[in-house]
Amino acid sequence: MGSLHTDVVLEANNNNGAFGANNPLEPEEFRRQAHVMVDFLADYYRDVGSYPVRSQVEPGYLSKVLPGSAPNQPESLDAILRDVREHIVPGLTHWQSPSYFAYFPSSGSTAGFLGEMLSTGFNVVGFNWMSSPAATELESIVMDWLGGMLALPRPFLFSGGGGGVLQGTTCEAILCTLTAARDRMLGRVGREHIGRLVVYGSDQTHCALQKAAQIAGIHPANFRAVKTRREDHFGLSPAELRRAADADEAAGLIPLFLCATVGTTSSTAVDPLPGLCAAAAEKGMWVHVDAAYAGSACICPEFRGFIDGVEGADSFSLNAHKWFFTTLDCCCLWVKRPDALVRALSTNPEYLRNKATESRSVVDYKDWQIALSRRFRALKLWMVLRSYGVANLRNFLRGHVRMAKDFEAMVAADARFEVVVPRYFAMVCFRLLLPSPNAAGDETAANELNRRLLEAANASGRVYMTHAVVGGVYLIRFAVGATLTEEWHVRAAWKVVVEHAEELLKELCV
Amino acid sequence: MGSLHTDVVLEANNNNGAFGANNPLEPEEFRRQAHVMVDFLADYYRDVGSYPVRSQVEPGYLSKVLPGSAPNQPESLDAILRDVREHIVPGLTHWQSPSYFAYFPSSGSTAGFLGEMLSTGFNVVGFNWMSSPAATELESIVMDWLGGMLALPRPFLFSGGGGGVLQGTTCEAILCTLTAARDRMLGRVGREHIGRLVVYGSDQTHCALQKAAQIAGIHPANFRAVKTRREDHFGLSPAELRRAADADEAAGLIPLFLCATVGTTSSTAVDPLPGLCAAAAEKGMWVHVDAAYAGSACICPEFRGFIDGVEGADSFSLNAHKWFFTTLDCCCLWVKRPDALVRALSTNPEYLRNKATESRSVVDYKDWQIALSRRFRALKLWMVLRSYGVANLRNFLRGHVRMAKDFEAMVAADARFEVVVPRYFAMVCFRLLLPSPNAAGDETAANELNRRLLEAANASGRVYMTHAVVGGVYLIRFAVGATLTEEWHVRAAWKVVVEHAEELLKELCV
Repeated sequence: MGSLHTDVVLEANNNNGAFGANNPLEPEEFRRQAHVMVDFLADYYRDVGSYPVRSQVEPGYLSKVLPGSAPNQPESLDAILRDVREHIVPGLTHWQSPSYFAYFPSSGSTAGFLGEMLSTGFNVVGFNWMSSPAATELESIVMDWLGGMLALPRPFLFSGGGGGVLQGTTCEAILCTLTAARDRMLGRVGREHIGRLVVYGSDQTHCALQKAAQIAGIHPANFRAVKTRREDHFGLSPAELRRAADADEAAGLIPLFLCATVGTTSSTAVDPLPGLCAAAAEKGMWVHVDAAYAGSACICPEFRGFIDGVEGADSFSLNAHKWFFTTLDCCCLWVKRPDALVRALSTNPEYLRNKATESRSVVDYKDWQIALSRRFRALKLWMVLRSYGVANLRNFLRGHVRMAKDFEAMVAADARFEVVVPRYFAMVCFRLLLPSPNAAGDETAANELNRRLLEAANASGRVYMTHAVVGGVYLIRFAVGATLTEEWHVRAAWKVVVEHAEELLKELCV
Repeated sequence: MGSLHTDVVLEANNNNGAFGANNPLEPEEFRRQAHVMVDFLADYYRDVGSYPVRSQVEPGYLSKVLPGSAPNQPESLDAILRDVREHIVPGLTHWQSPSYFAYFPSSGSTAGFLGEMLSTGFNVVGFNWMSSPAATELESIVMDWLGGMLALPRPFLFSGGGGGVLQGTTCEAILCTLTAARDRMLGRVGREHIGRLVVYGSDQTHCALQKAAQIAGIHPANFRAVKTRREDHFGLSPAELRRAADADEAAGLIPLFLCATVGTTSSTAVDPLPGLCAAAAEKGMWVHVDAAYAGSACICPEFRGFIDGVEGADSFSLNAHKWFFTTLDCCCLWVKRPDALVRALSTNPEYLRNKATESRSVVDYKDWQIALSRRFRALKLWMVLRSYGVANLRNFLRGHVRMAKDFEAMVAADARFEVVVPRYFAMVCFRLLLPSPNAAGDETAANELNRRLLEAANASGRVYMTHAVVGGVYLIRFAVGATLTEEWHVRAAWKVVVEHAEELLKELCV
């Protein structure tokens, strides 16, 4: 690695200096303790399938067992790990459990973990190119790699004049693009018109959009959650969007930003990008495509069609920490016009001035995001891509989809249940039907029945699923994607559902 | 850890399911590879002192050696680590090098690393209490611990009705508190007055404030960087703040938010909190205290005086990832009125509804921050506090301060140099003086001399420092705090400075 002055290192090894062997980063003690932690975690992955998936603790449990203040003297790793085992693990909901089917997955992997170790170990703060060139350059390269795997249109890639950046979460990605869109528009119409700007999503859009609009100072009355319909499978209708934007324009407001979703949180609905981008273009709106969950699947040719039309959007994001084996947090954002981000988000204090920046030959990612400081997240994504390779990554995702199809088939084969919306990816939305005598369209009773079913199944600790309400229907979401999940876990989960459903149905018939 | 159904685990071990031994999280392969990575990193810490501190690569170096697209087939960990050694490490600026004195430190530690490993390994997404109770509860407990160590006034602690939250960076902390302050004020005066709100800092305040104001939709003309003076040691004068706010009020504007700094980035200047909080209170402004760097030192009684007056502020933050042995990212934010954050930042989608939230007996941290998703950052801070204990942590910080004092003494003892501003913590701001014949107050020449000195010293690879310009003076910042730094590294760094200064002075005399 190009040693510079070995003599100096030798001196260091003979000199214990200020802290010596007690230095908090002394390499041999680091080695010893980190090996212990590796074994702790490997054992955790081996055993996690045996823990209650959803934590069973009560609010306030932890303050009853931990002291009220920090210790004055050091404690051993053994003592700390004992507390982790006894007090922290029972308070975890095990997102890595093979029987975890809740929310969306948070799919860890060995390669993602190792990349995070490297990043944590180097602990560089890559706010600009200068502060650690490899952090910036690897990020740009990896974002072009992944963009290529997704067949993103060239204008989203560095090689095509756009570019990608790793953010923490979709919330940040939306806030950054919304801020860029806002300032571009205010540059045209004047800052004083901030109160006239309108942001659009559907009633299925993730709450990240509303939050971003709140933070960016969009008037709360100017946030539109356009209603979707069951006959559109809860996708946002371009005609409805156009109608809403027309009405706003007629009222003297200014359509600004549309967040379209590919794979909504409630039911993985897909907004029709071509029609929406066309409608937005008529109004001069910025279109962001949020494919936080489903975007990963689009590396498979058979799923790529779900983002057809993205060429009409201004920005696109997916969360590699959801369903792409890269540990939290890792949101991949591509934009066609990085300069719009930079204009809205840059600051140039003297203490960060440097020749590389002034040469304008480098990317300074601090100007593409909210924060100045940033972790070297590209390492983990790079390690995931290289360790598994594109072919395997596709197969992993297809494996999850296949397991979801199996679950769907089991639901469909049981007349007591129904699949509520079409399954596009690896999530099945289903519900238990009210038994026929009671079934006269009593949605309230049906919803209550499924609420009870879900709570009973989750309380068993053998499975964890969550719910959504879509079009007035309470549905149970079964999201396959935890890395350790195998086919038999899916079958076992279905068994848990059926057992608890039968209990409930028995009660109803009494 | 309370095994639930061991029979099921046994079944799992005999069933290779969808991916079997090729599962990306297969425990024994995880164990094998993670042990390899531990040794890689321990070796890195052993050797990092021998690498050029500032990377010597040129823009674009990495794309010349990495392929243009992701591999289709898996690559081995060996192959990846070879690339890390050959291509990534030379592109790093080594923030963990013992000869790193640039910006502010990014002080890693074994305990911080282990905490990050645990958090990455569990990989839970703790957006609300329900999604992993331990993540929320440990964070609240640890924030009260650290608040207690800092002797923060009780209203900032959960035990006193306020509370603390871990954010990624100070930028996020400021944006969240500014948004809370903005919405509180707009609630009083009406949303249409957003264009009248004014944000105050000094010309020494971190650029995070300006960026937060931009994002939050504060009119760019309403951002005040109040000028500081050398005779105030570049602290913000309460009288100047009052004057600026009076002028704004007279112009029909509304003073909203003051960011006061304890330990500025350029020169660790300290804004006088009591006077500033009093002036801000007269105007009804929210006061945030940014002690990103220097806050850590305030766990030592002899430094606590620097935040005297914080009782008059609304919020306070420090970065544990700077000078508190906790790896990036970990910004600790305390607020007196969590409800102000929650009102500005909460969203309540159906898919996150749960009994615990509805009982109002838990904290849902998603409503205290920008993003929904959040990592389990409390683990690393908890491990740092427990592994080292309060007494040792104070000693580590005092060790850095002592080394900075040593460096200061060497500067002061050499008539060719001067210490430019008082040293309060572990950073020395110094410069080389123009030799007497040329010295007639030619600041431009002096600045150029020091710019060249800094560049020469950094180009040697033996040390890395950065600069600031304060009151027109270009100064070199020497920030002690990299965990591996020992006394002899400080002496060696001074030697590097002197050697290059002598070269330059010789040139001047020719």
